[in-house]
Amino acid sequence: MLRMTETLPTFADVLEAAERLAGHALVTPVLESPVLNDHVGGRLLVKAEPLQRTGSFKIRGAYNCISRIPEAERAAGVVAFSSGNHAQAVAAAAHELGLPAVIVMPDTAPRLKRQGTERWGAEIVTYDGRHPESREGIAEEILATRGGTLVRPYDDAAVIAGQGTAGLELMRQADALGAHLDAVLVPCGGGGLTAGVAIAVKHLSPDTQVFAVEPVGYDNTTRSLAAGARQRNEPGVHSFCDALAPPLPGVLSFAVNRELLAGGIVVSDDDVATAMRLAFLHLKLVIEPGGAVALAAALAGLLDRRNKTVAVVASGGNVDPATYAEVLTRDG
Amino acid sequence: MLRMTETLPTFADVLEAAERLAGHALVTPVLESPVLNDHVGGRLLVKAEPLQRTGSFKIRGAYNCISRIPEAERAAGVVAFSSGNHAQAVAAAAHELGLPAVIVMPDTAPRLKRQGTERWGAEIVTYDGRHPESREGIAEEILATRGGTLVRPYDDAAVIAGQGTAGLELMRQADALGAHLDAVLVPCGGGGLTAGVAIAVKHLSPDTQVFAVEPVGYDNTTRSLAAGARQRNEPGVHSFCDALAPPLPGVLSFAVNRELLAGGIVVSDDDVATAMRLAFLHLKLVIEPGGAVALAAALAGLLDRRNKTVAVVASGGNVDPATYAEVLTRDG
Repeated sequence: MLRMTETLPTFADVLEAAERLAGHALVTPVLESPVLNDHVGGRLLVKAEPLQRTGSFKIRGAYNCISRIPEAERAAGVVAFSSGNHAQAVAAAAHELGLPAVIVMPDTAPRLKRQGTERWGAEIVTYDGRHPESREGIAEEILATRGGTLVRPYDDAAVIAGQGTAGLELMRQADALGAHLDAVLVPCGGGGLTAGVAIAVKHLSPDTQVFAVEPVGYDNTTRSLAAGARQRNEPGVHSFCDALAPPLPGVLSFAVNRELLAGGIVVSDDDVATAMRLAFLHLKLVIEPGGAVALAAALAGLLDRRNKTVAVVASGGNVDPATYAEVLTRDG
Repeated sequence: MLRMTETLPTFADVLEAAERLAGHALVTPVLESPVLNDHVGGRLLVKAEPLQRTGSFKIRGAYNCISRIPEAERAAGVVAFSSGNHAQAVAAAAHELGLPAVIVMPDTAPRLKRQGTERWGAEIVTYDGRHPESREGIAEEILATRGGTLVRPYDDAAVIAGQGTAGLELMRQADALGAHLDAVLVPCGGGGLTAGVAIAVKHLSPDTQVFAVEPVGYDNTTRSLAAGARQRNEPGVHSFCDALAPPLPGVLSFAVNRELLAGGIVVSDDDVATAMRLAFLHLKLVIEPGGAVALAAALAGLLDRRNKTVAVVASGGNVDPATYAEVLTRDG
C-alpha cells in the first residue's frame, strides 16, 4: 500500500517549507505588462515559475518532500511517477540531496521533459501513455521489489506545502507592488499547486478568491468542486496541456481545495495557445501549454477582471521547440 | 547642429540614474541554469533585460534622459531615431512623463517593434532602411522645423548613465549570489549599454574584464578598439541582429569603451541562433537576435570560461513570432 500523510497541510507547513527551500528553490519574479493590463482592463500579475529551477514550480514540493526523508531511509532512494515536470524536479532534488531516483514516465512525455529528467542521473521506467491509470501500479511494484520512498506528485502534505511557497511569495510580492489581489488563478492537474497556493493566499488575505484552472477534457477538479466529491476525467480525451493530465483529484489536495477555492474555470486549447503567444510577445516568458491555463483564463475573459487585480501562476515552461514554434505561428 | 553633452559619464551619474529610475524601470532578475553552467564548464549568469519594461534595457537610458529635460522645454516634446528598442523606450518614457514624441524608424524595423512604439501614442516617421545614414538628417530636420529635444540612442551621457544601471544591478546581484565576476559580456551596437555597464562594473570590480560583443558585419566597436579610433561598418551588410546596426560607434560611448573595455568579440548568426534556442530551452527567456550576442559569445566558447564566472547581458526580447519560430526549428 502506498504511504499517505493523512494530516491536511497548514499555513505553518508552508512557512516551514519556505525555510527548507531557501537557497534550493528560487524566489521567482512577478511579471506585469501594460499591454496585458490594457487587455484585461485591470491589473494582471504573473508569477513566473518557468524561471524556477527545472523550469517549473515542481521543485518546491519535491525538494520539501525529499529533504524530510529520514537519514536511514535515504540510501533506498526515491520513486516518482510523472508526465514530466514532477519527474525533472524529483530527479534534480534527489541529485542535490544525494539520493538515487527512479522515475516512471509515460512514453508520450515531451522529449524535453525526458531529457531534463535523464540529466540528473535518474533511472527512467516508461509506460504506455495511453493508459495513465497503470502508472501507480508500476511505481508500487518498484517500491515492493526495491524499496525506497514514493514522492507523490500532489497527494502529499509536504508536496502541497512546498508548492504553497509559490503562493506565499506571490502574496509578499503583490504587497511590495502595492497590489491587493481580488483573485488568484492557478493551473490545476492533481490539485497540489492549487491547494498549496490557496492555503497561503487564504491565510494572508481571506477575501481574495482562488480559482483552479483546467483545460477542456481535464476538468476533474472543476466538476468535483461543483459536485462536492472527486470526479474522474473521461478516459481517452486529448489535450496539449500534457502537464495537467491526472485522472482524479488527489484526496488531500481536493480536501483543501473544496474548503478554500471559489471554484474552477475551464479553458480551451485555443485560449491556451493565445495566452502562450501573448506571454511571448509581452512578457518574453516561455510558458508550456499546461502552465498557461491560468493566464489563458484571465486573458480570455472567463472571469470578471475589469478594474480588478488578478494574479495568475504561470506554472512551467518545459515545452518542445517544435510545439512552441507551431503555437507562435498558428495565426500566421 | 545636434546637441551633445561633452562630459563623459561617471559612476556617480550611474548612481543618480538608478535613483531616477526607481519605480520606473525594473530591477531585472539574473538567471542561471545548471545545464548552461555545464555547457561552459564554469558559472554563467544572465542579466535578463527582455523582462525589462518595453522588452529591452533601453527604457533605462531613455527615461533617465527625458526625465532631465527642463520643464520649459517639455511641451516641445522629444525626437528619436531608432531601429526599434530605443524607439519603444523613448515612446514609453515620454508617455509616462507627459511629453509628445516623434520617432524616426526604418521601414525595415520588425513589426513588433513598430507596434510597440505606436502603442505609446508616438508619431512615427519612416525612412528607407537600406540607407541608415539618412536617419540623423531626418531627425535634424524635424528638430529644426518643430523644435523638441533629441534623445540620442547612445551618444549621450544621460543615456549611457541610464544603461549603466543594468551593470550596477548586475554587480549587486552577483554579490548576493556569492559570485565574483571574471568577465562581463555586453551586446554592443552604438556602444551605450556597453559603456554604461563598463562604468559600473569597472568602478565596483576593477579586475573584472568587460567585453563588447557584436555580430559579424557589425563589428565596428571591435575594430575600433583594435585600431584605437572609431571605425565604420561596411555598408550593405545584413545581419539578423537588427538592434545592433549603427554605422559608427558613438563619440562618448567609444571614449568610455576605449578606456574601460578588455576588447571586442564577434559572433556569427549561427552562434546567435544557438544561443536563442538554449535560452528558450534552459532559461525560458525570449531573447531577440541582437540581444543574444553576448550569450552567444559565452556559449560558443569565444572566451576562456572554464572554471570562471562570466555574466552576460541579454539586452532585449522584441522578436517577431515568425522569426523566433524559424530560429527554434532551424535544426529540426
